[in-house]
Order: sequence, then structure tokens, then C-alpha cells
Amino acid sequence: MMILGNLRVATLSDGYGLIPDAAILIEGGRIQWVGPEAHLPPSAAPRHDMGGRLCTPALIDCHTHAVFAGTRAAEFEMRLKGASYAEVAAAGGGIVSTVTATRAASAEELLAASLPRIDAMLDGGVGTVEIKSGYGLDIETELRMLRVARRIGALRKVRVRTSFLGAHAVPADYRGRPDAYLAEVVLPALKVAHDEGLVDAVDGFCEGIAFSPAQIAHVFAQAHKLRLPVKLHAEQLSNLGGAALAARHDALSADHLEYLDAEGVAALAAAGTVAVLLPGAFYALRETQAPPVAALRAAGVPMAVATDLNPGTSPLGALGLAMNMACTLFRLTPEEALAGTTIHAARALGLSDTGRIAPGFRADLAIWEAEHPAELSWRIGPAPLHARLHEGEFA
Amino acid sequence: MMILGNLRVATLSDGYGLIPDAAILIEGGRIQWVGPEAHLPPSAAPRHDMGGRLCTPALIDCHTHAVFAGTRAAEFEMRLKGASYAEVAAAGGGIVSTVTATRAASAEELLAASLPRIDAMLDGGVGTVEIKSGYGLDIETELRMLRVARRIGALRKVRVRTSFLGAHAVPADYRGRPDAYLAEVVLPALKVAHDEGLVDAVDGFCEGIAFSPAQIAHVFAQAHKLRLPVKLHAEQLSNLGGAALAARHDALSADHLEYLDAEGVAALAAAGTVAVLLPGAFYALRETQAPPVAALRAAGVPMAVATDLNPGTSPLGALGLAMNMACTLFRLTPEEALAGTTIHAARALGLSDTGRIAPGFRADLAIWEAEHPAELSWRIGPAPLHARLHEGEFA
Ligand SMILES: [Zn+2]
Ligand SMILES: [Zn+2]
Repeated sequence: MMILGNLRVATLSDGYGLIPDAAILIEGGRIQWVGPEAHLPPSAAPRHDMGGRLCTPALIDCHTHAVFAGTRAAEFEMRLKGASYAEVAAAGGGIVSTVTATRAASAEELLAASLPRIDAMLDGGVGTVEIKSGYGLDIETELRMLRVARRIGALRKVRVRTSFLGAHAVPADYRGRPDAYLAEVVLPALKVAHDEGLVDAVDGFCEGIAFSPAQIAHVFAQAHKLRLPVKLHAEQLSNLGGAALAARHDALSADHLEYLDAEGVAALAAAGTVAVLLPGAFYALRETQAPPVAALRAAGVPMAVATDLNPGTSPLGALGLAMNMACTLFRLTPEEALAGTTIHAARALGLSDTGRIAPGFRADLAIWEAEHPAELSWRIGPAPLHARLHEGEFA
Repeated sequence: MMILGNLRVATLSDGYGLIPDAAILIEGGRIQWVGPEAHLPPSAAPRHDMGGRLCTPALIDCHTHAVFAGTRAAEFEMRLKGASYAEVAAAGGGIVSTVTATRAASAEELLAASLPRIDAMLDGGVGTVEIKSGYGLDIETELRMLRVARRIGALRKVRVRTSFLGAHAVPADYRGRPDAYLAEVVLPALKVAHDEGLVDAVDGFCEGIAFSPAQIAHVFAQAHKLRLPVKLHAEQLSNLGGAALAARHDALSADHLEYLDAEGVAALAAAGTVAVLLPGAFYALRETQAPPVAALRAAGVPMAVATDLNPGTSPLGALGLAMNMACTLFRLTPEEALAGTTIHAARALGLSDTGRIAPGFRADLAIWEAEHPAELSWRIGPAPLHARLHEGEFA
């Protein structure tokens, strides 16, 4: 048992849900009580004075590709020196280079490459992170990525949720034969990964350069057989109706959504599917069409915000920066950005006991050198984290 | 004396100036020798093995307003909730709110508010930082800001260069009387600050909402009398010919430059004035006109990159992120971005013995968890700093 006292708490119940001069009573890794400290029930638990600092739920990064090998810095530099995409591809750039590096990396090497990225996230107040496979594109490497993700959850004070993303891209050895790739690699890999307990959700990339809605539906059917929830990269570069497809499959989330139309918005709203906004990719790709935030807001679609951390289209390793970008580039309010990295991000991962500060919720907390939660989105750059608790323990 | 061995060094002599398998010999806070470790002259100095990591000059943030009190998060939130600039101003927002908070802060409070920002910068590999006054707009507070900047340089292992920016804005008590403000506050404050040894350069804000070229010329004339170099916020929101004015006064730098025209480019080139690019302000203000990078490059104008860290238009506390933004938003190459935060940034501060790794230069070094210097610009977010040396000592 433990009391955190002298806090300004943003509970995330009904907007910020601010409680000044608040205390939190923690027991068994969960929140027992939160409210004005003057009303704290008598308790023998030791009290930690938090110096009037701001406390929010620990942040949740609900969309990352944080496990990979290699960098894509050379390709970044080539493009800025004027190389075309074709020239970059001819030099072995693009997702192929990450797949090649990831396939070549042992589990230990993959872990060593990924842990510093996770540690930097945690320094930014993150307590739950989703990690996708999708740079193996063969059975063995997809499994290795997911095992490394699970090991990260065991090695660090962080809750890791995995998504199987075999349907990320068609690998070179299956070029022009996406259905064969799905049948021979993706579906078998999903089955094996699930049997090994490595999969919390099934994801896909629905786009002209990746998989069609019909192909994604095929993967989702297999997920349903395994009783796994689904989510989808949809409407990032064009509108294929991916969000509506995801909604029809009761998806936890549809992610990116730059090209989402009114029909897609209505489908997400009806299904209760979370719209995950990924401003880092929008920024890095210099996109000009932003997701339809006003329409999503009007329709009551819960909006989450994530880094999309990946070496190619979003080498963004700071969730607080994604919050600033969501405000600056997509015009979310700071309150929406914080809900998007706490309560709505939890929902995008199917988690119902983290992302809020309320009795019964896990005591995953971030304590900030800040007075007001809007500061977390206002800043561009280093996160002002003072301390973090994971399941009631200082991390 | 000390040897750093097993390094990949980017000397910043002629582009990256990469030396693989390199060593650096340091004596008396300065670099004595750098080259392939196999050619290292015999020495009894202790050797530190740096594990093959990348070494660059410590970064130089040559344009910041890092000393201030208060935040502007409330105003950021108001605007995102739809408030107009007039409504924000009516609520006490804008630079006025920072001036009010800074005037109200004691030197100790101002230091306490600013040090965490500096510490975060240093964690990002910065070894030299420029800090401007300009949130006092009265003699006493301008002096206090500069004294705090000097104390930061004494308290931390960082080289602080100060710029006097009394001509930042016309304070409320002088509204409509800018010339009176210059005569009664700016020029006297500059004299006193200089007498106290607080001023390394004199800066101004040349813009329709601030000071005219004629008014800036008046301030520059005083700077010349005091034998202080000048620099200028120019062509950020419109083209008033500020860069050409700065060039005529042999300015160290002209900063922002979104609206710089061909004449301004030619003037900077002829004078050898550095163009300081500030992509954080461009990003935060959602500007659409980028500085004329191609023209600056063609004319051989040295380009520096800085954060412009300030609470209103660029709450950007990470120089590495400014490098990424310079590449992503302004299309600098990673090599130009690194030169822009080392050798050219040094020049923008009038420093000739830092920002390169060469014999005689100060041993201000950053050691990175990276293989190639392009990674420093490719990443969006946390800087992969392994260690930093300041004048030959591990910081
Ligand atoms: Zn993704
Ligand atoms: Zn400035």
C-alpha cells in the first residue's frame, strides 16, 4: 500500500478530470482511491509527497514498429540529396532494407537494437506500448520479432501488447503473388504465433502498395477463428474503404486515416472502433491531407495518438512529440491529445484497466514537472517526466 | 592528457570529414591530434575505448530564448480550442504573458525555471548555447536575464554566449512609442549590460510587428560603438530587407529568413553572414513559405540550424529535432544540418575554436550511439547521446 500525496491529478475521467491538491491510494498494483487529499480515508500506508506536481495515467503508445534492426538513415540522406524513390529502391532502400536487416539479426541482436528505443519511450512517460511484427515476412522472423517484444515486456517495467502484422508488405520472394504469400506465410505464421501465446491482436496494411480489402478480410477471418481482435492500417495514402472493412470486423482500431471519407467515419462511429492518428508519418512523408479530425470529433469516434515508431516513414521515438504534432498538424486540442495517449489508446489495445486514474484501474502513473496537462502537448521535444509508476511501483 | 580511441569521427572538416577507426588526443582542454588510430603518435596519455561509436563536435545551439519564466501552454490550448489571436491577447496571452512572468521572477526563480531546459539540451549533445535577453523589456529585467544566462554557464559544463535583445518587442508601457523605448530602455540597458560584461552580441527583431530597419540600425550603431558584433531576426514574416541591413553591419548572422529574397541572399554571401534557419518556429506557426535554401546553398552562404527555443513560437528544446526539421521541412541534407549545428553555428556566434574536430580546437565532443552522422538528423525525437566532453572533460 502507498499513498501519493500533494498532486494535481488529471484522472482522464470526463476530459482532463483535474483534481487539485489530490492524493492517490494504491494497493496491490491498483488504484484504490483518488480524490482531494483532504478527503483521503484514514490509512496507515506510507505517504510520498509529490511536491504539487502533475500526475496523469502513464502514457500508452498504441501503434509502434519498435522492434527492428538497422537504420534507414542512409536512405533518408539519399532522398535529401535528390535521389528518386526508384534510385533508393535500386540501392536496396525502403522496407526491403529493414526486412533484410531484421531477418539477419539474432533474437539477442534484435533485442539489443530495440531496447534503447523502448527505454527512451519510457523516459517519456510511456507505461504501455504496442509492438508489431511485420519486418520478417517469413514465419521464423515474424515469430522472432514477437518473442523479442514479449521479452521487452519481461525485462522492463512496461506493458507490451503485440500485434501480428504479417500482412505488412509482400516480400521480394513473393513479388506479384500476394495470395500465395498470405496462404503460405501469413496464415501459418499467425497460427504458430498464436499457439505460442505471442499475439494480442492481428493487424494488416490495406493499401494499393500492400494488400487489398479482400486479402485483408481473409487474414481477419483467420483472426476471428483464433478469437483474436483485429486492427488495420487504413486510408493512409488512398481510400480503399479499409476503415469500413475494419469496422465490419469489430476492429479495435483503424490507424492513419488521412484519406478517410464520411462513410468511413460513420462506420467507425457505429462500430466503436478507435481512430488512431499517426502524425509522425504524416510529418515525415510531408503529406498534405490530414485525417478528418472535425468529422471524427463530430461523430464521437474516440481518437488515439501514437508514434508509429518505425525506421522508414516515422522514426519518431517520443510520444509527447506525437501529441504536439497531433495538435500542431491535425488540430487536436491538448485535452484530446492526452485522451489519445491514455484512455483512447488503451481502448485501441483492448485494455480496460489502464489509461485512467480511477478505483480499480492499474496504478500506471506518470508524474510530471508541469502544472497543467496542456504543457505535455505544448512542448516540442524532451518530456518533463519526474517519475513513473508501473502497477504501483516506481519504475 | 587523454586519448579517445576506437571512434568513428566526423571532424566537420570538408563536409562530414569522416575518419573511421580514429583516435583523438586531448591536452589542456584542446584537441592535439585527430586521425586514424593506427597513426596515433606515441603517447603516455590514458586511453578511453569508445567502442566504435560515432564522435562529432558537441552541438551548438546558436539561437535560443532559453531563459524565461512561465509557460504558454494555456494560450496553445486556447488557440486549438478555436480562440482568435485577439481573444488570446485579451486573455493576457502572447509575448506579454512571458514578459509579465519574467519580470515577476527573481534571479533564483528564473534560473530554476531555465536550468531544466538547459539540462535537456545538454542531454541532446549540446556543448555551446546562445541565450538572448528580450523578455524583460525594462533595464532591470534585461540585465537579470543576462546574469542568469551567465550563471548557467558557470553552473553547467556548457559554453554560454549571450545576445542582448532589448529590441525584441515594444512593451505595453511604450505602446506606439518605439523610439522612446529604444532611447530610454534599450540603449541604456545595452550600455549597462556591456559594462557588466554580460553581452557577447547585440540582436534585434526587424519586423512590422516589432522594429523597422531604421530603428534596428540605431541599435546596431550603439553596438558598433561598444565594439559588439550584431545579429538580427530578419525576414521571418515579411521582407523588410533586414538581412541586407544585417549584412551591411557585418552581422554574425541573420536568423529565420523565410521571406529572404535574392538581394538578401547576395548581401549575406558578400558579407559572410551566417543564415540561421529556425524550423521549429516555421513548424509551430504552420508557415508555408520556407527559407530559400537552394539559393543560399548556391550562393555559398553558411547555413546554421538552431532551436529558437522560446515559449511562444518555438517551444522546441531539442537541437537534434531541429536538425530533423531542417531536413524534413527545409530540405537540408543531414550533412548540412550537422554543419549547421557545429561549424556554421560556431561562426554565427563568432567562435573560431569550437564546432570542428581539429588540432587547436576546443575538445567539445559528443559521442553517439550511432554509426553514421546522418542518423542524427534521421531520428525524430530522443537523441542517442552516449557521452559528452566539455573542454576535454567528460560532462
Ligand atoms: Zn504502422
Ligand atoms: Zn528568436
